[in-house]
Amino acid sequence: MDQINENQIKEAYITLPKGYIANGVHAGLKPNGNPDLAFIASKTPANVAGVYTSNLVKGHSLTRSISIIRSQKTVRGIVINSGNANACVGEDGEKDAEEMAKCAASVIGAESKDILTASTGVIGSRLPLDKLTAAIPDLVKNASSSEECGHLAERAIMTTDTQPKEVAATVNIFGKEITIAGIAKGSGMIHPNLATMISVFTTDANISQDVLQSMISANVKDTYNRVSVDGDTSVCDMVVILANGATETPEIKAGSEEYDVFKEAFHALCIDLAKMIASDGEGASKLVEVEVNGAKTSNDAYLCVLSICRSPLCKTAIFGQDANCGRFITALGYSGADIDPNKISMFLSGLPVYEKGVALPFDEDVAKEKLSEHDILIRIELNDGEYNDRMWTCDFTYDYVKINASYRS
Amino acid sequence: MDQINENQIKEAYITLPKGYIANGVHAGLKPNGNPDLAFIASKTPANVAGVYTSNLVKGHSLTRSISIIRSQKTVRGIVINSGNANACVGEDGEKDAEEMAKCAASVIGAESKDILTASTGVIGSRLPLDKLTAAIPDLVKNASSSEECGHLAERAIMTTDTQPKEVAATVNIFGKEITIAGIAKGSGMIHPNLATMISVFTTDANISQDVLQSMISANVKDTYNRVSVDGDTSVCDMVVILANGATETPEIKAGSEEYDVFKEAFHALCIDLAKMIASDGEGASKLVEVEVNGAKTSNDAYLCVLSICRSPLCKTAIFGQDANCGRFITALGYSGADIDPNKISMFLSGLPVYEKGVALPFDEDVAKEKLSEHDILIRIELNDGEYNDRMWTCDFTYDYVKINASYRS
Repeated sequence: MDQINENQIKEAYITLPKGYIANGVHAGLKPNGNPDLAFIASKTPANVAGVYTSNLVKGHSLTRSISIIRSQKTVRGIVINSGNANACVGEDGEKDAEEMAKCAASVIGAESKDILTASTGVIGSRLPLDKLTAAIPDLVKNASSSEECGHLAERAIMTTDTQPKEVAATVNIFGKEITIAGIAKGSGMIHPNLATMISVFTTDANISQDVLQSMISANVKDTYNRVSVDGDTSVCDMVVILANGATETPEIKAGSEEYDVFKEAFHALCIDLAKMIASDGEGASKLVEVEVNGAKTSNDAYLCVLSICRSPLCKTAIFGQDANCGRFITALGYSGADIDPNKISMFLSGLPVYEKGVALPFDEDVAKEKLSEHDILIRIELNDGEYNDRMWTCDFTYDYVKINASYRS
Repeated sequence: MDQINENQIKEAYITLPKGYIANGVHAGLKPNGNPDLAFIASKTPANVAGVYTSNLVKGHSLTRSISIIRSQKTVRGIVINSGNANACVGEDGEKDAEEMAKCAASVIGAESKDILTASTGVIGSRLPLDKLTAAIPDLVKNASSSEECGHLAERAIMTTDTQPKEVAATVNIFGKEITIAGIAKGSGMIHPNLATMISVFTTDANISQDVLQSMISANVKDTYNRVSVDGDTSVCDMVVILANGATETPEIKAGSEEYDVFKEAFHALCIDLAKMIASDGEGASKLVEVEVNGAKTSNDAYLCVLSICRSPLCKTAIFGQDANCGRFITALGYSGADIDPNKISMFLSGLPVYEKGVALPFDEDVAKEKLSEHDILIRIELNDGEYNDRMWTCDFTYDYVKINASYRS
């Protein structure tokens, strides 16, 4: 189940690549006093690329960032606040995002258009701009490349995440050591109303915006777009990567051997963060990988993994450590995928529980033991074609309901 | 919110229409000793029509019934067991369903093909046929038109339903009183793994199979197909209607005034049962009606109501009595419907909370009070076209997780 990433750095933080600074402070948005405002920047202009939520409703901080990335090749950095989404508040929201960026930009002598913005939290409440603009000058002034500041930036974007999510890897390209680092916030908020995911990557690689963009777009398909916590797609989701070329190598060109090495390392980091997000989903007690093989088309395979990962009945069964294979077969049956029910087989963390359309007798104690593990692998063999897919989710617990039923204030 | 049905009978049971008998007994499938085996039949051959789950995986008792209804115009009745779904067990499952029917048919001197079958419960476990065939002779022999026997049949199809679901209405057609009665089981099982819905209607109207079929197919669209408890579509769902013509009127022809009267009464009963199913959903504490108006197409309207009704975040917010309009707007945004986020308005049981893409300030106490009611109405105005839809669901509670995380045995 684990992705092997031999280049991975154990003690990861976002300022590991050369030429980056970061910081995180408490600006007063989170009632518990935790950091809620992050700044991540390159010392020099960095090529930038991103992918964004497919929700038609988009937060104002996000739409501002999308428009910047689409109209210019480089940025200097990003300001991110947690605790308030800056969405669905009208023109004020646009102005507030611009104001946040302007405030940060002025401290480093940049233009506001060189600072991206992201906000995560309750929708429909205006940002407390006074608190943000009061905190931003010191946030930016005190930003540094230190490990401590790197970790603070991650802590400041966390919401109901119970674990920080920081990864990094080094690869050798053109005889030099190139570093990629990434952070993410997962599924949950102090004022929970999003399955929000925000992720920022930094690298000192020399790689153009176009190549970065095609790499990140291709990479999210089987990483970030294969995580489901509760099937709700937030209005603020964003993954961005900054590449400042600080290692001073020749450019990594698309299709080159160097590109493959770089892309592979980046992909492994995306997988790691995606799994961390699923594993730390709201109320989660288990990480569940759903693997579907042998579909007629890639879309059929996708519909199958998606259906199981969205099914409350499958996810409560896993929480209850109940080897109830009928729920999984049912989810496949209504997935919309073109499948033959009589060809389906299923394995529960290796244990065969269903074969060619018929439930198998199995040792309930063995099944229970497998389901008592933290990592669960649901493997479905459709035996009907060549296409495969896999997705990560978590179980559905009392704590999910508790977290999400609590009042906003 | 309530559908007015002036013809409705308060003390309803399935044997109210002329010429029907029913019964329910404990055959030994439910550990708690409650009735788990039902028999409902007409004294004479009755025209029959039905609608069935769209799940590609279908239970053996169900596929047997579908094939009978497609190949013959009339049946005598139906045997239904709860506690065990008879699905995904291979050829044995087909034989077991046939055996149940044969056993019941022999008692009333009918052929097995005149008895439909339905089973609801855990998937992948073979029916305890010995228990069923031991109980069926007395079940059928003692079936009667009495109110007590009618109620017993309903109790025998219930699983984790907390309330029996029985409706009936009379209409005056051709100068005679015609009665329609219906029962349903809702979302939950002793061995919970389906959001199973089974519903049976009886009527003494004189109406052909073809007309019955087109009526029931049209009727489920905005009744049974507009109920979501958790988004999981069972493999055993079925709604059937028997019409034995016992009132001895001329035939009710499609397109006639009599047909409209009959159809309207049937439709109102379907709505009543659909709402009972939503209201008594697993762990539910509230009945939620989601109404979406002003969509560009009927499919857009449907995608919007469906998305909200499937969203765990919307449903936990209602459980938590949290007027978190952002979650509902988010669900619209990722619904797949072609909508303009800047035109959306939202009302929470009448309270305006969102207007033309911007969250409104509102009195939290008033919102809280509205959300403390049992019946909640979420009204969305898309202001973008002429199409409307509505759907019923329930809230998402600790008890839902509790019921569905419990081990099968």
